[in-house]
Amino acid sequence: MEIIGEKINGTRTQVKQAIAERNAEFIQNLARKQVEGGAHWLDINAGTVPEREPDDLVWLVNLVQDVVEVPLCLDSANPNALRVAIKHVRKTPMINSISGETNRLNGILPIVAEFGCEVIVLCMDDKGVPASVDARLDVIHQVFMETRRAGVPDERIYVDPLVLTIATNTEAGRITFDTMRAIRTQFPQAHISCGLSNVSFGLPVRALINRTFLVLALNAGMDTAIIDPNDRELQAAMRAADLLLGRDKHCLNYTRAYRAGLLEKK
Amino acid sequence: MEIIGEKINGTRTQVKQAIAERNAEFIQNLARKQVEGGAHWLDINAGTVPEREPDDLVWLVNLVQDVVEVPLCLDSANPNALRVAIKHVRKTPMINSISGETNRLNGILPIVAEFGCEVIVLCMDDKGVPASVDARLDVIHQVFMETRRAGVPDERIYVDPLVLTIATNTEAGRITFDTMRAIRTQFPQAHISCGLSNVSFGLPVRALINRTFLVLALNAGMDTAIIDPNDRELQAAMRAADLLLGRDKHCLNYTRAYRAGLLEKK
Repeated sequence: MEIIGEKINGTRTQVKQAIAERNAEFIQNLARKQVEGGAHWLDINAGTVPEREPDDLVWLVNLVQDVVEVPLCLDSANPNALRVAIKHVRKTPMINSISGETNRLNGILPIVAEFGCEVIVLCMDDKGVPASVDARLDVIHQVFMETRRAGVPDERIYVDPLVLTIATNTEAGRITFDTMRAIRTQFPQAHISCGLSNVSFGLPVRALINRTFLVLALNAGMDTAIIDPNDRELQAAMRAADLLLGRDKHCLNYTRAYRAGLLEKK
Repeated sequence: MEIIGEKINGTRTQVKQAIAERNAEFIQNLARKQVEGGAHWLDINAGTVPEREPDDLVWLVNLVQDVVEVPLCLDSANPNALRVAIKHVRKTPMINSISGETNRLNGILPIVAEFGCEVIVLCMDDKGVPASVDARLDVIHQVFMETRRAGVPDERIYVDPLVLTIATNTEAGRITFDTMRAIRTQFPQAHISCGLSNVSFGLPVRALINRTFLVLALNAGMDTAIIDPNDRELQAAMRAADLLLGRDKHCLNYTRAYRAGLLEKK
């Protein structure tokens, strides 16, 4: 599985403060630590108001690139901020995200096409997140029509089928897993991604629900996740799932992680 | 999910000693603790030589029935021990186990039919455990021919597809999950069970592999497991999986388990 490290996100209190205070050390430590934890990409979200966002995003991009080699995942709904930041990015970035929403398709898909980016596609449109598996697949088919028309190959697309809160609908998990399985069949070249934290909102012991969701999502075809790479239990569950699903030849990754001290509780 | 408590098993050192010394308190504590932990059945395995097994099994059965109400799962390959013990059992027991092996079918299936027992069916025959999903299904079809001929309804059967050691074959998990999915489709009335500990043999942090296996097996259709009901992390993973698979209406079991202090680490 590929990991997109989620921690450099200006909607988190400490990161917001670090951005406001131009605390480079805090941001660079977050970057280094996530890569050490196994991140293949780093999400970069300035989380600031549109006027400040281009400057803040460029500041973050430059800082992070000075200390790690992994490609970045530019996380913004603001085409202007993305266009400014992308000029400073050394490796072709992933863009987080487009969706079936008209303003995302009009504003951000052209950037993805022009710069040859990878892109996360959220399964929603102007009417919100569809309730059923079929309705979600309709949205996904519509978005792929647009991305193909724009010349973006399917293998650069990371579909996030979205998971709603299980506390308000106990079918939320099944709907997401079934949507993943359908995407895997209908768009075999595309990647499948997912954020983990929505699912457990409002319930106790959220980390338990999140890591169990990860195991079931890996089984349903997810190959990329936006997570905290320094969450040891999440990483341990991921490695055990890969092992049990036949994706870890000779158990090499599992036993390596064990020898690195990553599987046992601290 | 239904839980068969695995701990009263004479192949475990402490239980073996308790049986030899007729230590009733030790056995009865194990029984009570497993039922408090959520066991719906208690496995009873004397683990002794054939000459001693009937006496030891009857001793265990009587002791356990004096302190708990749940039905028992008589665990023996010895038809003689089963016939003696079954006369002392107050609730119709489960028998652990038959298989496609000729001596099990000839010796134990008639007992299952005569006493109206539930029964665990191991997916193996005189040639051992088949390597492929198709070969396992062949064995299962053969056993169901025999159980149906003997008048045992499918809903009293708990098929254990068996899982081999993933350290020696990284396809072992997938083979078991695929066999479970096929059983669920081809024998919709039957239950699916599985022991957890084989899969992780020879690897480090076995509990992590076992509980991840449990989550994936529940997803593949398993509805019963022979486990330690006092393993908190296993129980927590099971409840989270039930929740995410849409089997916990209004999240009641999950939130109840939380309030009972069962989900968080000690």
